Amino acid sequence: MTGNFSGNKTDIKERQMKGYKSAGRQSIAFKNPPYIIAASSLAGEKEGEGPLGSHFDQIIPDPMVGKNTWEEAESELMRMAAQTVLAKAELKPTDIRFLIGGDLLGQLIATSFGIAELQIPIFGVYGACSTMGESMSIGAILVDGGFAKRVIAITSSHFAGAEKQFRFPLDYGNQRPYSASWTVTGSGAVIIADHPANKKAGEPDIVITGITSGKIVDYGIKDSMNMGAAMAPAAFETIKQNFEDFTIKPDYYDKIITGDLGYVGKNILIELLKEKDYDITKQHMDCGIEIYNQDTQDTHAGGSGCGCSAVTFAGYILEKLKAREWKRVLFVPTGALLSQVSFNEGNTVPGIAHAVMVEVR
Amino acid sequence: MTGNFSGNKTDIKERQMKGYKSAGRQSIAFKNPPYIIAASSLAGEKEGEGPLGSHFDQIIPDPMVGKNTWEEAESELMRMAAQTVLAKAELKPTDIRFLIGGDLLGQLIATSFGIAELQIPIFGVYGACSTMGESMSIGAILVDGGFAKRVIAITSSHFAGAEKQFRFPLDYGNQRPYSASWTVTGSGAVIIADHPANKKAGEPDIVITGITSGKIVDYGIKDSMNMGAAMAPAAFETIKQNFEDFTIKPDYYDKIITGDLGYVGKNILIELLKEKDYDITKQHMDCGIEIYNQDTQDTHAGGSGCGCSAVTFAGYILEKLKAREWKRVLFVPTGALLSQVSFNEGNTVPGIAHAVMVEVR
Repeated sequence: MTGNFSGNKTDIKERQMKGYKSAGRQSIAFKNPPYIIAASSLAGEKEGEGPLGSHFDQIIPDPMVGKNTWEEAESELMRMAAQTVLAKAELKPTDIRFLIGGDLLGQLIATSFGIAELQIPIFGVYGACSTMGESMSIGAILVDGGFAKRVIAITSSHFAGAEKQFRFPLDYGNQRPYSASWTVTGSGAVIIADHPANKKAGEPDIVITGITSGKIVDYGIKDSMNMGAAMAPAAFETIKQNFEDFTIKPDYYDKIITGDLGYVGKNILIELLKEKDYDITKQHMDCGIEIYNQDTQDTHAGGSGCGCSAVTFAGYILEKLKAREWKRVLFVPTGALLSQVSFNEGNTVPGIAHAVMVEVR
Repeated sequence: MTGNFSGNKTDIKERQMKGYKSAGRQSIAFKNPPYIIAASSLAGEKEGEGPLGSHFDQIIPDPMVGKNTWEEAESELMRMAAQTVLAKAELKPTDIRFLIGGDLLGQLIATSFGIAELQIPIFGVYGACSTMGESMSIGAILVDGGFAKRVIAITSSHFAGAEKQFRFPLDYGNQRPYSASWTVTGSGAVIIADHPANKKAGEPDIVITGITSGKIVDYGIKDSMNMGAAMAPAAFETIKQNFEDFTIKPDYYDKIITGDLGYVGKNILIELLKEKDYDITKQHMDCGIEIYNQDTQDTHAGGSGCGCSAVTFAGYILEKLKAREWKRVLFVPTGALLSQVSFNEGNTVPGIAHAVMVEVR
């Protein structure tokens, strides 16, 4: 249905010049790549003590964030992340045309209660821990398509809320297997716009050049304590499709950054891609691995949750791009599509991954 | 931020000619209004016995739809609705660029498991019972923006799954107050495309001319058994904004159709609009009121659930448009943004409503 493109890596720009929007089977090349003009990252104490702690805008030591429940705490984190990104961009809520956001809690209550006061038209989205990839994708579509000048893409997660939602309330004191990941307490947001930001002298523009949107991938994994294994095949399919749709190789990117595969999922992803003759060993990074110190923080398989990739992107990855240390990044948040009900009923844990191509201009 | 437009009802076409996409504060006028080329509606036995029963593609008498759990039954309904809409359009899954869908179950498991086999890139969305409005909005944006030739917008709900999710499992046999609504068992889907369908002779084109996207509206209602009251203010805000953004009056439309306000919410909506000098008494219809017979079906406040507005639109409303009985419709699915957790923690029930302008061409 969509055109077939051949050629080398310079083709992406050519395609944009020609006005193609659909690239290959699952990808879009933006004609007027939208700008990421501001970002905010708020994280909890444990994340603050991790290797990326100094990159976040704010560390919130109180896990309740001054509220009465874990769910309200997560909403408050999201509210603060939205207010912070607006303040950093020197914008008001009325300057934002749409907010695209979601979270892990049933019926997206962290988002609904977190951003209600902003009074921005909202598209609630759910892609499990891939949500930041989905919200940035829809945000870029709205801006490139001329439907919005500025949008906010936002997501959050909270360790205690997620444990209660998906596993056991913390008060049970249950043991966690080594393949289990640690849900990040944090919220990250970006503002995507059709014009560049007011930048400091010498700072480059950061743009979203394309996306590759994920299908649901189900390899039959049934262990909710091993989500890395459930999500790795989805990351594999999306990354492989990105290479094929744009006719590029892994070295097109300085970094290929998955959301929260952790140590278990990372190895599976690299092996699956090797079988297709793609070696991403040099480029690959996983937000879930970077966010905690495995030796000292006892987080087992690594970090996870919508907030994991969101705060790592908004805090750390954008800094590297602004400093021009990295020029082209494939950001691939990964999600495990389970609920406590589907898990208890013996269903598999399908995965999904939404890739966003972010480049320095 | 977006332009201010003044003038009369003919302006919508003028704006499209001029290439404006943003209309007013919350609306979009599509430049190339996308076509609704096919629709499918599958419903349960109770819905089949209701006044709209003859309009649905298929009635499924078995509430388990041949599966072992209510959740799997809902997934199966969605799978069947997707396959039916593809068959009616004589298309294959690979002809569809994106699927935009969601449901009421925590973490959207009805959708994830229902549409996995189609292997179409998916954007999971959540707007409670407003989800069909949200998925059609994003679908129309993708098509009008040139990002997709064809997309599927889909949603579902299931009475037993929703009662278990939000209230009490059916086996408890609890009594339901008269303000409570009855979740529709059903799934509805539409294909939105950049070209008209192969039509029967004399059949008109049905297009989406614009959308008005909802904000979260919280009037402080706390009763999950009275969702009509919780959602009516959101419907009010979105409908009023639609009138203001396009500078039109209620009589621009042949019908203004809310999703599932029911008998309680309908009256609140009409009163709220009257206070702003908009009288929609003649135009208003509510899918939740139409779908059951109040005298004989004991469904209290009326039907609700994502499936309620979806099957009513895909089955009944599109028929009326195709027959040219109605030429302009404002379709406004309404959602109550609660979860069992937010309700049990004493939170309010905020509402949201996403409006889609559907017209005969």
